Amino acid sequence: MQKIKTAVVGATGYTGSEIVRILSQHPRVELSLITSESRAGEMFSDIHPFFAGIVDQKLEKAEKVAQTDLDVVFLALPHGVSMDYVKQFAGQDFRIVDFSGDFRLPTPEIYEQWYPKQHSYPEGFPNAVYGLPELYADRIRNAGLVANPGCFPTGAILALAPLVQKGIIKKDGIIIDSKTGVTGAGIKASATNMFSNVNDNFKAYGVKKHRHTIEIQSVLEDVGGALGPVQFTPHLLPVDRGILSTVYLRPDSTGRKLLDDNKGKDETGKQLLESIFKEFYKGKTFVRMCGQPPALKDVRATNYCNIYVDYDDRTGNIMVISAIDNLVKGAAGLAVQNMNVMFELDETSGLTHIPVNP
Amino acid sequence: MQKIKTAVVGATGYTGSEIVRILSQHPRVELSLITSESRAGEMFSDIHPFFAGIVDQKLEKAEKVAQTDLDVVFLALPHGVSMDYVKQFAGQDFRIVDFSGDFRLPTPEIYEQWYPKQHSYPEGFPNAVYGLPELYADRIRNAGLVANPGCFPTGAILALAPLVQKGIIKKDGIIIDSKTGVTGAGIKASATNMFSNVNDNFKAYGVKKHRHTIEIQSVLEDVGGALGPVQFTPHLLPVDRGILSTVYLRPDSTGRKLLDDNKGKDETGKQLLESIFKEFYKGKTFVRMCGQPPALKDVRATNYCNIYVDYDDRTGNIMVISAIDNLVKGAAGLAVQNMNVMFELDETSGLTHIPVNP
Amino acid sequence: MQKIKTAVVGATGYTGSEIVRILSQHPRVELSLITSESRAGEMFSDIHPFFAGIVDQKLEKAEKVAQTDLDVVFLALPHGVSMDYVKQFAGQDFRIVDFSGDFRLPTPEIYEQWYPKQHSYPEGFPNAVYGLPELYADRIRNAGLVANPGCFPTGAILALAPLVQKGIIKKDGIIIDSKTGVTGAGIKASATNMFSNVNDNFKAYGVKKHRHTIEIQSVLEDVGGALGPVQFTPHLLPVDRGILSTVYLRPDSTGRKLLDDNKGKDETGKQLLESIFKEFYKGKTFVRMCGQPPALKDVRATNYCNIYVDYDDRTGNIMVISAIDNLVKGAAGLAVQNMNVMFELDETSGLTHIPVNP
Amino acid sequence: MQKIKTAVVGATGYTGSEIVRILSQHPRVELSLITSESRAGEMFSDIHPFFAGIVDQKLEKAEKVAQTDLDVVFLALPHGVSMDYVKQFAGQDFRIVDFSGDFRLPTPEIYEQWYPKQHSYPEGFPNAVYGLPELYADRIRNAGLVANPGCFPTGAILALAPLVQKGIIKKDGIIIDSKTGVTGAGIKASATNMFSNVNDNFKAYGVKKHRHTIEIQSVLEDVGGALGPVQFTPHLLPVDRGILSTVYLRPDSTGRKLLDDNKGKDETGKQLLESIFKEFYKGKTFVRMCGQPPALKDVRATNYCNIYVDYDDRTGNIMVISAIDNLVKGAAGLAVQNMNVMFELDETSGLTHIPVNP
Repeated sequence: MQKIKTAVVGATGYTGSEIVRILSQHPRVELSLITSESRAGEMFSDIHPFFAGIVDQKLEKAEKVAQTDLDVVFLALPHGVSMDYVKQFAGQDFRIVDFSGDFRLPTPEIYEQWYPKQHSYPEGFPNAVYGLPELYADRIRNAGLVANPGCFPTGAILALAPLVQKGIIKKDGIIIDSKTGVTGAGIKASATNMFSNVNDNFKAYGVKKHRHTIEIQSVLEDVGGALGPVQFTPHLLPVDRGILSTVYLRPDSTGRKLLDDNKGKDETGKQLLESIFKEFYKGKTFVRMCGQPPALKDVRATNYCNIYVDYDDRTGNIMVISAIDNLVKGAAGLAVQNMNVMFELDETSGLTHIPVNP
Repeated sequence: MQKIKTAVVGATGYTGSEIVRILSQHPRVELSLITSESRAGEMFSDIHPFFAGIVDQKLEKAEKVAQTDLDVVFLALPHGVSMDYVKQFAGQDFRIVDFSGDFRLPTPEIYEQWYPKQHSYPEGFPNAVYGLPELYADRIRNAGLVANPGCFPTGAILALAPLVQKGIIKKDGIIIDSKTGVTGAGIKASATNMFSNVNDNFKAYGVKKHRHTIEIQSVLEDVGGALGPVQFTPHLLPVDRGILSTVYLRPDSTGRKLLDDNKGKDETGKQLLESIFKEFYKGKTFVRMCGQPPALKDVRATNYCNIYVDYDDRTGNIMVISAIDNLVKGAAGLAVQNMNVMFELDETSGLTHIPVNP
Repeated sequence: MQKIKTAVVGATGYTGSEIVRILSQHPRVELSLITSESRAGEMFSDIHPFFAGIVDQKLEKAEKVAQTDLDVVFLALPHGVSMDYVKQFAGQDFRIVDFSGDFRLPTPEIYEQWYPKQHSYPEGFPNAVYGLPELYADRIRNAGLVANPGCFPTGAILALAPLVQKGIIKKDGIIIDSKTGVTGAGIKASATNMFSNVNDNFKAYGVKKHRHTIEIQSVLEDVGGALGPVQFTPHLLPVDRGILSTVYLRPDSTGRKLLDDNKGKDETGKQLLESIFKEFYKGKTFVRMCGQPPALKDVRATNYCNIYVDYDDRTGNIMVISAIDNLVKGAAGLAVQNMNVMFELDETSGLTHIPVNP
Repeated sequence: MQKIKTAVVGATGYTGSEIVRILSQHPRVELSLITSESRAGEMFSDIHPFFAGIVDQKLEKAEKVAQTDLDVVFLALPHGVSMDYVKQFAGQDFRIVDFSGDFRLPTPEIYEQWYPKQHSYPEGFPNAVYGLPELYADRIRNAGLVANPGCFPTGAILALAPLVQKGIIKKDGIIIDSKTGVTGAGIKASATNMFSNVNDNFKAYGVKKHRHTIEIQSVLEDVGGALGPVQFTPHLLPVDRGILSTVYLRPDSTGRKLLDDNKGKDETGKQLLESIFKEFYKGKTFVRMCGQPPALKDVRATNYCNIYVDYDDRTGNIMVISAIDNLVKGAAGLAVQNMNVMFELDETSGLTHIPVNP
C-alpha cells in the first residue's frame, strides 16, 4: 500500500517535534521532509537528542517543499507566518494542514480585529476548512487547506458543541475557565515559561482578550446559531502538557424543564446530559465520556479528549469539564487525525497511543 | 510587656505546624503548649526536623490544656473533632480560635446538612464569631470562640464582599472557580495527595457538593443579604501551597449602567471596581489590590490576599481573581491575625513575612 | 502468525499497569489474563481510568492462571510475594518473568542477608536467569524463569559492564550516586511518596544499606570477576519517572596509561572510552551513547538507556552517567524485551516508543 | 541604636531580590539604596510585584552609590562585572560584600584559568577575604572586601572542612556529587531554565569543568593543606531552591583505624564522625547536624546548612551530605551573616527565619 508523503514545515518547535514523533510511527506515512529556516542543515536529532537513533533526518529550508513529491504539508508555524507559506503554496498539488490561527476565523476582517497583523492572503479564507473532525469530517475530507484548531478551542468546543447544537441552553452567559500547561507558550525561552516563574505557581493571563475567544465563539455559532459573547479565561499551570476547561452554562427554559423533570426518576439530569453527548459523539473514538471529572494525566501524550458533564440542581447550572493534551489533541495529533480523514484512512491510524500515566 | 500565652492543640498537621512556625517568631507571644494525641511524648522537631534547634518542645496530650495558664488556645483539628474540645473547654478562662468547620455556619442544622456528622455542641453556635477580620474585626475583638474561616472561603469571600455589600451585582449566577495546592488535603498520605497523582496533573473535585460552598454563601449573605445559590468548583493544583479563585459575576442594571457609563471616560469600569475594593479594604494591610492578575507565589508563605478585579464590557461580566496561601491567610496566619485583633495588638504583629519567591 | 499468550499477575501497581500498556500495543502479543488479588472482579479501566476504551478487561484472581492457556506469565509483585507464585507455578508449561528481587541474587543465602525474609523457594535459584538482555541474551533465550533486574541495577550495570569486562579499572572504590523518580516507591500512598514531601524537595535515602547494592555487585562480578565493595547511594527526585546514575571509577595502571597516552592525539580519553562502550553494545538498539550528559526526559516512557562516559585527566577519574525510565527499561519494558528474546522475536518488537518530551 | 546603612547594587536578580527580602526585615539595617542599571527609575515592586506594599523603593543607577552615606555595599552582580565596581569603589568609606566569583580565588592567575576573562583589578586580591563565617569569622570582622562564597562551595566546604582539618582522610579521591535548584542559573530566561526543560527532568552539567571546583579546592587546601584534585559534578534539579551535595571520602590509615576500632563499641564510626563535626561547628547556629539524611525543604528559605555524616564499614567510605538554600545560605543570607560579623552584631540577626515547609 502506498504511503502518504508528508512534510513538516517548522519542525523544531513543540508542535513540530510532536508531529514528527507521531508521523514517524504512523504505519501509512512517509516523513519525506522536515524543515526549519533557522536550523536548516542541522540534524533533527542534534536539536532534539531524544530522537537520536529514531529520526536522524536533516532539516531543510522550506524552499525544498516545492522540489519534493508530497501529498500533504503540515505548517507548524506561528500565527502571521503561516499565511505567507499558504499563499506561496497555492496551486501546488499537495494539501495543507496549518497549525496557526491564520485561517481559522470566518473572515480576514475578524482575524484583523483579534490578531495584531494585516492578513497577507485573504484569498485563502473561502477554501479553508476548520479542522475539527468530530464536527466537520465531511468538509475536511475534500479540503485543500485545513486550519488546525487552536489548543484551547479544541477542548472548549468539544465540551460545548453537543449542548449548543441541541439548543437547550441559554445563548448568553457561557463561561469557559481554562487551565493550560506551559508548552502552549511555545519553545522560545521567556519570562513566561521560566521554571521558577511557573513551578509551584499559578495565575490567569490574557484576561478578556485572548484571541482563542473569537475562535471558540465563531465555531460554536457555526454549530448552533448566534450566541451571546463567550467569556474565556486562560490560566497557566505548572505542568508540561494538557488543557483542562471548566465550562459553566445555564439551560434555557426547555432545558431546565427537561433536566428538572428528571429529578427522582431513573435518569438524572447528569445522565440525560451524558446521553446527549454520547449521541453526539457516537463513533468518535477520541472523545471519552467520564463518570468522574477527568485529570490531565488521563489523556497525556494521546489524542483523547475526556469529557465530564453534570447538572447542579441546586444552582441550575450545567457544568462540562474537558481534558486534552494540548500538543496532541490540541495540535499535532489533531493534525494527523485530519490527515487520516483527508486520505480516507481510519481516523485512529497512527494515533493509538495509550496515556503515559504516571 | 507581658506575652500572650498560647497553646496549639493538634500541632503536627500542616496548619498546626504552620501556626507553630508563626507563633514561635511572634514578638508578643509565648508558645506555652503544643499537643498531639497520637504523638504525645515526642519532640516536635523529631516529627518535623526542619524545626530542629528552633522549636525543640515536647508534644503533650490535650488534657494538659486544663492545667496550663493560657490566654488563647488554637484548635488545629479536623472537622467533627474540634466540637468536642470546644465543648470540654467551655467555661475556661482562655479564648479559642478553632480551625475546623464546626462553628463557621449559622446553625447546627445547616452544619448537619453539609457535614456528615451530628453536631455534639449546638450550644456553641450563638457565641461563635466568624473570624475574618477584614469583615468582622469588631465582633472578633471580644469573641470567646472564633471560628477560623475555611481556606477556600477566605479567598472567595475577600474577592466578593466589596461588591456584594455595594449592591451593584445580580444576586444570581455567582460562579467561583477555585484552584488549590495539595496541602489543603492535609498531612495524611492518601491517593489524593500522592506525588504521581498530582505532579504534572490537574483535575476538579467535589463538584457541586464541596462544603465550603455553604460557608461562602452564608457569609456573603450576612454581608449583603440573600443571594441565589453560589456555584463553587475546586480544582487540585500540582503545588504545595496557595489558592487562586477566579470569580465571575454580573452587574445588576444599576451596576451595568455605572460601569458602561465610564466607557471612554477618565475612569474605566476596571478602575471604578478597583476603587470600590480600595474603599472597602481601606487600612486593611493584608489585602493588596493588583494591576495584573495575581500569581500564587506573590503571596506564598505570607498572610496577604492579592486581588485583581476587572470588567469585560464585551461580555458584561465582572471578574475578580484572588490569591492566598492556604496555610497562612487560609488558616494559620489568619488565626494569628484573629488573635492580634482579640488581644488588641497591631493586626500585622508577627505576620510581617515577605513572600518567598521563587 | 500466532500470538504469544500472556498474563500479568499483579496488574494494578505501577509496573503492572505499565506492562499492560506495552503488551496491549505489542503486535505479537495477546493479553490473555490480568490479575489482582485485592481488586479481582473490577474492571482494569475502573481502577486506571486512562485505559478506558483501550483495556476494558476484568481483573481475575491469580488462581485463574492455572486454568488459562498461556505462553508467559509476568509477575509484577513485591519482593517476598513473588517467590510463592514461582513455587506454585513450577512445572507449568508457561515461562515466567518475575519483576521482584526474589530470584535475582546468586543464592538464597545472599538473598536473606539483604532482604528481610526467609526464602520460601530456594529450589528456584539454579534455573533463574538474570534478565538483562544486553548482557545475557543467550541465557535468557531458553530460560524458564527470568529474574527481571531491579530499576537501579539496570541503569548502573549498563553504565559499568563494558569497563568492568574490559578490565582497565581499579576493582576498588566504585561509587554509584543514583537519583530516582517517585514511582520507584510503588503505588501505595505513604509519607515517602506524598506530593508535599517530594515536590520542590530532594534527599538521599537507604544510605549504606539499599538492597540493590548487592544486586549490582553480584552481576558486575559475574561480568568481570571479583570487585571491592561497591558504594551505592539512591536519592529521591521530584519527578514521576526516571533514574539517573552518576558513576565514579578509577582506571587501573593499564587503563590510566591507555587514557593518558591519548592526550593530544586524535582520539581523546573520552573517545577511547566511548569506543569501548560502542563495541560492547554493538547491535543493542536500546543503549544510546550520548555526546552530552543525558537527561531523564530523553528516555521517558521508552526502553532506552542513554549513556555518557568521560575521562577527567585532571583528577584521573572516569565518569559514566546513565539515564533510564525506571518503569520501562527499569521494569516493564525490560520484561517485554526479555519476552522478545525468549520467543525469538525482534528485540525491539512492541518497544518502538519515542520519548514523550516534554 | 544606629542602623547600618546598606546598598544593594544589582537588586533585580534572584540573589539581589533575596537580599532585599532579608535586609528589609533586618532589625538593625536601613536599606538606603537599591540599584539596577537596566531598570533604574522603575519601582522595585513593579518588577517584583510580591514586594508591593513592602518594598516600594525606586531603583537607582549604581553611580548613586558614591553620593550616598553608606556603611556597606552588597554587589549582587555577575562574575566579570563586579570587579569593575570594586575597583571603582576603592578608597570609599563603606565596606563591600561581593556576590560574584571575582575575588574568591587566591590569585588573579588562578581566576583567569577558570573564568573566561582577564581580571581588571588584580590589586583587589590581597585585601579580599573569603566570606564563610563558620571558617573565617576573624578575618571577616575587619575585612574591607568580603568575597561571598559560591553556592556550591558553601555546601561542599561546610561538608568537608571538619574532616579536612582533622587530617584523618586521604588527600586524594574526594568526590562531590551536587544537585542544585534552578535559581542557581539566574533570572535571565534561557533554554537551561525553561520550565519544560527542567520539570520532571534531571541531568548533570558542567562535568569536569565547573569553576566552583577550584573554589572548593582552594578553600579546603587553605583549611587543611594540599589535596589531590577534587571531583565536582553539578546536576540540575526540578526545584526552585536548594543544593544538596553528596560527598564521598576515604579515611586515611589513621582515620580508618579510628573508625574501625569503634565497631561494636559504645560509639560507632558514625557517632565519632558526628562528634568531630559538632566540635568543629560548636557555637555555629546555622550548621545543624542531622541524624537522618537532610532534605532540601528542611532548610528552605533559611540560612541553615543541614549536615549528615556516616561511615560505611562495608566499603570503608565516609559519606557527608549537606543541604542549603542556594539563595540564602548559598548567597544572600550568607552575605547578611557576613555583614553581621563585620559590624559585630549577633551572627543570626535578621536571619532567624524558619524553613517554609511544605
